[in-house]
Amino acid sequence: MEETFVPFRGIQNDLRGRLKCYKQDWTGGFKAGFRILAPTTYIFFASAIPVISFGEQLERNTDGVLTAVQTLASTALCGIIHSIIGGQPLLILGVAEPTVIMYTFMFEFVKDRSDLGREKFLAWTAWVCVWTSGLLFLLSILGACSIINRFTRVAGELFGLLIAMLFMQQSIKGLVEEFRIPHNENPRSTQFLPSWRFANGMFALVLSFGLLLTALRSRKARSWRYGTGWLRSFIADYGVPLMVLIWTAVSYIPAGDVPKGIPRRLFSPNPWSPGAYENWTVIKDMLNVPVAYIIGAFIPATMIAVLYYFDHSVASQLAQQKEFNLRKPSCYHYDLLLLGFLTLLCGLIGIPPANGVIPQSPMHTKSLATLKHQLLRNRLVATARKSISKNASLGQLYGNMQEAYQQMQTPLVYQEPSARGLHELKESTVQAATCSGNIDAPLDETLFDIEKEIDDLLPVEVKEQRLSNLLQATMVGGCVAAMPILKKIPTSVLWGYFAFMAIESLPGNQFWERILLLFTAPSRRYKVLEEQHATFVETVPFKTIAIFTIFQTVYLLVCFGLTWIPIAGVMFPLMIMLLVPVRQYFLPKFFKGAHLYDLDAAEYEEAPALPFNLATETELGHGASYAGDGEILDEVITRSRGEFRHTSSPKVTSSTATPEIDPRSHRSPRLSTSPRLSELRGERSPRARGPHSPITGEPRPSNLGKSPLNSASS
Amino acid sequence: MEETFVPFRGIQNDLRGRLKCYKQDWTGGFKAGFRILAPTTYIFFASAIPVISFGEQLERNTDGVLTAVQTLASTALCGIIHSIIGGQPLLILGVAEPTVIMYTFMFEFVKDRSDLGREKFLAWTAWVCVWTSGLLFLLSILGACSIINRFTRVAGELFGLLIAMLFMQQSIKGLVEEFRIPHNENPRSTQFLPSWRFANGMFALVLSFGLLLTALRSRKARSWRYGTGWLRSFIADYGVPLMVLIWTAVSYIPAGDVPKGIPRRLFSPNPWSPGAYENWTVIKDMLNVPVAYIIGAFIPATMIAVLYYFDHSVASQLAQQKEFNLRKPSCYHYDLLLLGFLTLLCGLIGIPPANGVIPQSPMHTKSLATLKHQLLRNRLVATARKSISKNASLGQLYGNMQEAYQQMQTPLVYQEPSARGLHELKESTVQAATCSGNIDAPLDETLFDIEKEIDDLLPVEVKEQRLSNLLQATMVGGCVAAMPILKKIPTSVLWGYFAFMAIESLPGNQFWERILLLFTAPSRRYKVLEEQHATFVETVPFKTIAIFTIFQTVYLLVCFGLTWIPIAGVMFPLMIMLLVPVRQYFLPKFFKGAHLYDLDAAEYEEAPALPFNLATETELGHGASYAGDGEILDEVITRSRGEFRHTSSPKVTSSTATPEIDPRSHRSPRLSTSPRLSELRGERSPRARGPHSPITGEPRPSNLGKSPLNSASS
Repeated sequence: MEETFVPFRGIQNDLRGRLKCYKQDWTGGFKAGFRILAPTTYIFFASAIPVISFGEQLERNTDGVLTAVQTLASTALCGIIHSIIGGQPLLILGVAEPTVIMYTFMFEFVKDRSDLGREKFLAWTAWVCVWTSGLLFLLSILGACSIINRFTRVAGELFGLLIAMLFMQQSIKGLVEEFRIPHNENPRSTQFLPSWRFANGMFALVLSFGLLLTALRSRKARSWRYGTGWLRSFIADYGVPLMVLIWTAVSYIPAGDVPKGIPRRLFSPNPWSPGAYENWTVIKDMLNVPVAYIIGAFIPATMIAVLYYFDHSVASQLAQQKEFNLRKPSCYHYDLLLLGFLTLLCGLIGIPPANGVIPQSPMHTKSLATLKHQLLRNRLVATARKSISKNASLGQLYGNMQEAYQQMQTPLVYQEPSARGLHELKESTVQAATCSGNIDAPLDETLFDIEKEIDDLLPVEVKEQRLSNLLQATMVGGCVAAMPILKKIPTSVLWGYFAFMAIESLPGNQFWERILLLFTAPSRRYKVLEEQHATFVETVPFKTIAIFTIFQTVYLLVCFGLTWIPIAGVMFPLMIMLLVPVRQYFLPKFFKGAHLYDLDAAEYEEAPALPFNLATETELGHGASYAGDGEILDEVITRSRGEFRHTSSPKVTSSTATPEIDPRSHRSPRLSTSPRLSELRGERSPRARGPHSPITGEPRPSNLGKSPLNSASS
Repeated sequence: MEETFVPFRGIQNDLRGRLKCYKQDWTGGFKAGFRILAPTTYIFFASAIPVISFGEQLERNTDGVLTAVQTLASTALCGIIHSIIGGQPLLILGVAEPTVIMYTFMFEFVKDRSDLGREKFLAWTAWVCVWTSGLLFLLSILGACSIINRFTRVAGELFGLLIAMLFMQQSIKGLVEEFRIPHNENPRSTQFLPSWRFANGMFALVLSFGLLLTALRSRKARSWRYGTGWLRSFIADYGVPLMVLIWTAVSYIPAGDVPKGIPRRLFSPNPWSPGAYENWTVIKDMLNVPVAYIIGAFIPATMIAVLYYFDHSVASQLAQQKEFNLRKPSCYHYDLLLLGFLTLLCGLIGIPPANGVIPQSPMHTKSLATLKHQLLRNRLVATARKSISKNASLGQLYGNMQEAYQQMQTPLVYQEPSARGLHELKESTVQAATCSGNIDAPLDETLFDIEKEIDDLLPVEVKEQRLSNLLQATMVGGCVAAMPILKKIPTSVLWGYFAFMAIESLPGNQFWERILLLFTAPSRRYKVLEEQHATFVETVPFKTIAIFTIFQTVYLLVCFGLTWIPIAGVMFPLMIMLLVPVRQYFLPKFFKGAHLYDLDAAEYEEAPALPFNLATETELGHGASYAGDGEILDEVITRSRGEFRHTSSPKVTSSTATPEIDPRSHRSPRLSTSPRLSELRGERSPRARGPHSPITGEPRPSNLGKSPLNSASS
């Protein structure tokens, strides 16, 4: 994305890009069939449960003016509109914690003023929303989102981890509350006797840990060893809602002597009661607000505008990280413009506005990547089986699979078709050939575990479409109607779910992975190399990684501390925005450019020169290069005779250390192809190849033997 | 062990064997140093906790005549005597559930008789013990233990799994009881109000699941990625006692409003109270028992004798399974004789007798195998480091390690020194040489991960000594004095511990592993082949495995059902003894000899002829053969140049299918060397070698490509 501050230019560019793929956004979604329901329900729960919980929080804090009905309504309304006319359909909208804090603060301000009071609270917030939307329009038109490029991985991941910490904090707070008497409740009732309170707390522990542990397990069901395939898929896809259901059922097991309020359940007003609709007509009251307050509303509006600008853009950015290999363009400016309209709309009908949320938005992309993977996999497996049953040779199989793969690709006008997937497919089939020993002989399925091969070698791709977002938003809307059913969910299940969301958002966060690396015993660090790992693990010295990570952790803790300060806490995003200049001007003074690049690639920076030892590492980098097919084939076949041919052509470099012009067209660092290539060579992992390579007798590759981790540990 | 029924022959043989290594039994234990404390505390907890729990059960069932003090005293006394003058020091003695059931039954019989009653109960049981010990002497002298050979893996593992089920049942029963009002308690006290009962039950769930999950995790600490080495070792060694301590501490967190009885804790009399010593003088009352009852005592005595004969021998057998590669001889007859004396002693001082217990005895051996492994490993790592620092060549390193290994071997008169360990060491060092590319060059530690190499290649050996048994028995005795401290442990922690013991006894049980295999999805069965696995996985068709396992499972369920029948239940071991004729005469009619041999090797059977395809499988079987060193070396070095040399000499056969004369001198099926050998060849596992072997271009070995599991799945 170019940095342009010409008015309307950003919006114009965004619209141009997204309009081209608008039709495909819908057709693609419908083509996925019923499988789209898996990511949809997954995100629906991730979206609805916090919104309900925030609604309850808002209800306590605003004396019942705003409730879960309003937060759900706002989330559904904004979600539906965004999914239809929004720019980036991967972005999930919802009423978030900062909004709740701001509304609480505003209610505190309003409730004791005689000329406003509880009655005119919503009218005043409507004015706040009017100002906010004006500011958002301005930001969007002036191209403020262009600087999102300067917002690098460091800042994004720090924000992600901060949100995870806040979710975890909410979960712990909630559990502790289960042992206490809640606000606004009659402390004399049976369920608040010390014995029942204690019982309730213990029951809450059982339910929340039960949900957390089973939900975490169920997400991994696809790799379980037991149970049939469809059962494993079903549990992996729908495990989380299933577990919420199961633990809610468990909460009904103790009957008899146990009083009604144990365990505590969601408390929300009946959306069908007459009082629940007062807020919709708030527009009538707006002119009754004194002029001074109308003007004064500008002050909270600026805070909310900055917050939304930041939250919305970062949520969108995290949903579009490089490692997802997205094909369709981003749309920051137009989405911010639309957010302005949505804020205005919500303000005028008296509901708190929604904005882009973390971690739901990246969770959405991840679940769609799983979906796309399954769709591709099923198609290719079917193709391969068909070819094999026809006694096709390897060449024909490759041709057929290539064709099928092409058909699955999104035909986009603005981008050249990617050749990446093909290479990998070829590698896959060539590997199969090498196993069976003959490239032209008919393939035997018993010798070629198709599903596994394809599974291992398919690139990460995301099913980018609008349907899942529309459906989940509609389902959130359905929650308003289903409030009487939702009320059966115990609050402790909610706290377990919060912890689940916090933990689910961690994998893939390099900041988190680096923190873990700090705690990894030196003698065990080689295990990191055995798995999929980021480039920096091999290229940056451990000390540098440690210092960088400690700096980031301290920064994180400062931000976390800020959230505890009552009003200033809302502005913690400012602290994270401060990371942009820190990253740009401060960090380069302490870290080498090349190290910084691997730890936190910033596109505005020059690509650092490759260190010499990297450039000569043909061993690691070879597979990732885009050398001609013939060469790869040659290489593989030569090696299959047990010889090792040293190729040291200059073009062979580690793709992971060679930034390319279009960040989307090259494999992201995290999903470095090297482990795959090593499999192609019949080895399991770099480690297995390193010190245990008795077959070729070759000296072990230098960067593994002397990788920063290894040398640090010895 | 030969089957001889000549009187005293068995005892004589046993004594002759054990006396030779008696001195080494002690010196070996003391040489291990403080590390012996790890298996000691592990087994102490595994021994003491069930004994305390059974004591509480006995107290309820005998109106307080017998309590945990007596069961602990019996366990300690018998344990100390057995560890000093017993035959097999790996065997752990304790008061077991069947004894509790028998004593309960006898108390029910006695309490309502006017001429016996509660007062003469212990005097009468003393007579029962007298008869029992007489029967045990008879069985021991006549060589009844000789038929232990006919008691095969099928029966032993079925019994092991049954005990695990009983422990699990106890754990679940205990947890359910936490929600109810216990017997003999005042139901009016505060802690038994419905609210507090419910709170207590929920707290119990938290504590027991907390203990279970953390204890299971802590046992795996050695392979954790985080934390320093000593911390990981410490947690792995002492994690279980530590967790009991931690969760007991957690149980004290809720204070204030919570009444004293929540959570429920161990209830046991003060051993220092005057009433606690009544039973010691029971011998005085023995002659006051009417003669009719003295004679009648023979009836329960026969039942107890059969039970003990069976339990004691099987516990001893399970502690000496083939896969442990024990070096010292077994001692069934003499141990049974000693058990007779111990039963007599216990009877005369009015405490319930102890006998060999499952799963503690096999747990003991396992923990000593871990200890031995660590001792060997530390020694060899130190030797290797020293050699490398002196710039020794590979040849010298091999020599030094060989020497160190020899020094660690138990020098036994009756057995030739085993050459096995040496082969493996040689393989290990040769592998290292192949990695570094030069067998004569000085070694570089960065190229040779010593700890990992040695870890991977050390054979399973057990630190066979008497010290750990003596210490744990003494510590159990200490529990009697420490009763006031033990009372602080919540009963729910006990239930969690019971579940932990049940789960800990499962790994290594092939019956259990076969049950899991039945539930493994066909497409995932290859994963079993990727890991350490038993021979049958590769040699027996899946259908046969399934039928065999289902038969065994049905048999298990019948036995389990029997335990629910009040008095007949005690005799469930008879059902398991019935398995001996079933195995010998019934099963061979339904299963092929070769299959049966791999599923359940019986030494009295002829070794089945090797199927032709097995004999030609040089690939798999080669490493397990005892071909000359030179050949292995040749082979490795040839392969290291990337070539593959087909050796099909007739002596190269799978050791796992070739039974040898001394069952202890060959590697057991479960720890087949083939996975190691495949590592030696630079591959990770048979699977990795199978379909993914692009290096050598060789056709994939037939038994893997067409292994029963694979062909069943395709």
